[in-house]
Amino acid sequence: MFEQIFENVRRKSPLIHNITNYVTVNDCANMLLACGSSPIMADDPEDAVEITAVCDGLNINIGTLNRQTIPSMFAAGRRSVELGHPVVLDPVGAGASRLRTDTAFRLLQEVKFTVIRGNISEIKTLASGSSATRGVDAGVADKIEEDNLDHAAVFAREFARRTRAVAVITGAIDLVADEERVFCIRNGHPMMSAVTGTGCQLSAITAAFVAANPDRLLEATAAAVCAMGLCGEIACRRLDHADGNASYRNYIIDAMYCLTPAALEEGARYEMR
Amino acid sequence: MFEQIFENVRRKSPLIHNITNYVTVNDCANMLLACGSSPIMADDPEDAVEITAVCDGLNINIGTLNRQTIPSMFAAGRRSVELGHPVVLDPVGAGASRLRTDTAFRLLQEVKFTVIRGNISEIKTLASGSSATRGVDAGVADKIEEDNLDHAAVFAREFARRTRAVAVITGAIDLVADEERVFCIRNGHPMMSAVTGTGCQLSAITAAFVAANPDRLLEATAAAVCAMGLCGEIACRRLDHADGNASYRNYIIDAMYCLTPAALEEGARYEMR
Amino acid sequence: MFEQIFENVRRKSPLIHNITNYVTVNDCANMLLACGSSPIMADDPEDAVEITAVCDGLNINIGTLNRQTIPSMFAAGRRSVELGHPVVLDPVGAGASRLRTDTAFRLLQEVKFTVIRGNISEIKTLASGSSATRGVDAGVADKIEEDNLDHAAVFAREFARRTRAVAVITGAIDLVADEERVFCIRNGHPMMSAVTGTGCQLSAITAAFVAANPDRLLEATAAAVCAMGLCGEIACRRLDHADGNASYRNYIIDAMYCLTPAALEEGARYEMR
Repeated sequence: MFEQIFENVRRKSPLIHNITNYVTVNDCANMLLACGSSPIMADDPEDAVEITAVCDGLNINIGTLNRQTIPSMFAAGRRSVELGHPVVLDPVGAGASRLRTDTAFRLLQEVKFTVIRGNISEIKTLASGSSATRGVDAGVADKIEEDNLDHAAVFAREFARRTRAVAVITGAIDLVADEERVFCIRNGHPMMSAVTGTGCQLSAITAAFVAANPDRLLEATAAAVCAMGLCGEIACRRLDHADGNASYRNYIIDAMYCLTPAALEEGARYEMR
Repeated sequence: MFEQIFENVRRKSPLIHNITNYVTVNDCANMLLACGSSPIMADDPEDAVEITAVCDGLNINIGTLNRQTIPSMFAAGRRSVELGHPVVLDPVGAGASRLRTDTAFRLLQEVKFTVIRGNISEIKTLASGSSATRGVDAGVADKIEEDNLDHAAVFAREFARRTRAVAVITGAIDLVADEERVFCIRNGHPMMSAVTGTGCQLSAITAAFVAANPDRLLEATAAAVCAMGLCGEIACRRLDHADGNASYRNYIIDAMYCLTPAALEEGARYEMR
Repeated sequence: MFEQIFENVRRKSPLIHNITNYVTVNDCANMLLACGSSPIMADDPEDAVEITAVCDGLNINIGTLNRQTIPSMFAAGRRSVELGHPVVLDPVGAGASRLRTDTAFRLLQEVKFTVIRGNISEIKTLASGSSATRGVDAGVADKIEEDNLDHAAVFAREFARRTRAVAVITGAIDLVADEERVFCIRNGHPMMSAVTGTGCQLSAITAAFVAANPDRLLEATAAAVCAMGLCGEIACRRLDHADGNASYRNYIIDAMYCLTPAALEEGARYEMR
């Protein structure tokens, strides 16, 4: 299944509009190219609405929010929904400041996202407070591990139900949920957290995967998560004794460039709950 | 000829002011350093005019336009022209949105550019609509290939005549034209399009090449285009089976750092039309 | 001593808030991760004050100043001082434009910095003009070398006394001074100047080193400077004939990731004046 999904990304080469932070934007662009998609960045309010209309999907990342680009997120998000384009939200730092938390809440209210991807802390923030998600049990543990996986899976499904989005909670084990099914994914490597922006890159390619597979949103999202984790594993095997997080960063993107659909199918490690 | 031109860049080490997008700005800075030049970035309107005055050339790239930096482009552009500094325009995405297209048109009207570099689609947009360029035959094909090269060369010369700039149209074959002569350049490698910002990097080093060679603008621009393409070729030969576009990105910049003027002279592949 | 200081960085993993330029921000983030710290970027005025409060230190870099982020620097700087957090200033380009110079002067007046790091030209600008530093002898030479080292050390001590900050002047020889003592540091490699942002990276990790060692500010700063220079040396030994400044950039960050506290202790080359 993932083989076909990844082939669709490579064949259709969706153009993805990114309104994202300036810290990891270059890596997001190269990772989109690596997976077979094409990136475009535009964050001026006037520009963003027009650019998003010529794209196949939109990726909104609030990593370095500012007052100039927030209106672009709303305008481009609404326009993309109108056009039937998939829209991904990466609520970086939701919970760490009012501006981030409030912006994420307001985005959830005004834009029907296709996928929402964050770590457990960010997703719990969204689940606990926004009117779109209020009532979701945010009492899930702060770290998803084997012994709380069932509880976390219920939380992810419920978050997906309330937001009507595919929910992605990344950590040592990654969860990808719609309201009925949950992929528990065990790809990835702990060293990925020593590279800035691997989460941002995952959100960007997720937009490409769902844009190329509109009829299988849950599976396409799970395929993106497995692909990113698998690239982290492949890149890790390439490290020599003098390599650190900078070379690792490059090797992860390289691994995506070299990854075949068949290798993704074979290397994906997940179970359904 | 290119040997001497590249030696001048290395010897004079021109300081280049870049008002450019935040996606590829780091690579532009490192590529400028790799070719022997020095980069400085300043895009606040107040700052940009003063900074451009202490530089040797200006590179304006509209890749992530926003309302704050557009006035800086005009102000710094006019100031550079007053001071006799070369100014390069990279009209990223002209034709894709009104803000980009209109800004590019207005820049063409108000700033006398030394070099304008874009892909065929961007240059056709500029040729078809701005008052500075109206009347240019924009009916040229969307892809420059062997069988329409003569027609494209005429188009490039005419665009150069109307804009009074050296025109650079990059693609599988690159054209570098003034109103009388056209360099048809066959350096480069298709994988360069899998790295974000190789066009931006070329525009940046073009500013350095013309700043260091003010009496040979056409040849200096052609030398920059050949150098960039040659680095793409050299970097490609270095790729091993696990390398992808991230390592390729680094190898291209590395290749510029290691490129000698003599190797540029020898590796440049072009003909005049 | 440096061994313990570096161990504290790795053990405490301070969270560093960076208000910095968009050119080198990604490398600053990865370098902070490489040394064992964690980065966060926030430059909207509303966001910056809240984010800085949840961090352990603040790094202010004026490399791409603009009117939107200047108020964030003041507000976050004051908030950090109130909270007793260390604050580092990197006055990039002070002296090159009024906006940069004036902003640096005003920051010096309103924020009590823990460390100020610049090249000799930037520090001389600060020393000559701000009311906080007026009267400091800025007649020191433009390049710190063996034969003017004593004079430069006196200048650095005096600058530290007036600003009540640890003063760092980087160049072929680096000086790290408080009002009584000066570390003269001979780590580093000339090729580091061919990589954009090695100075920015040093300022970022300095914030992490002082945040993790609040009782030894001078020594912690000297340790950061030695660590950065040592990584430049280690990375240089790794270069092969085809590598240039792009691979070198990665190798420097890799070297920090792999550097052990014991290796820093052993590799640090300095004397006190």
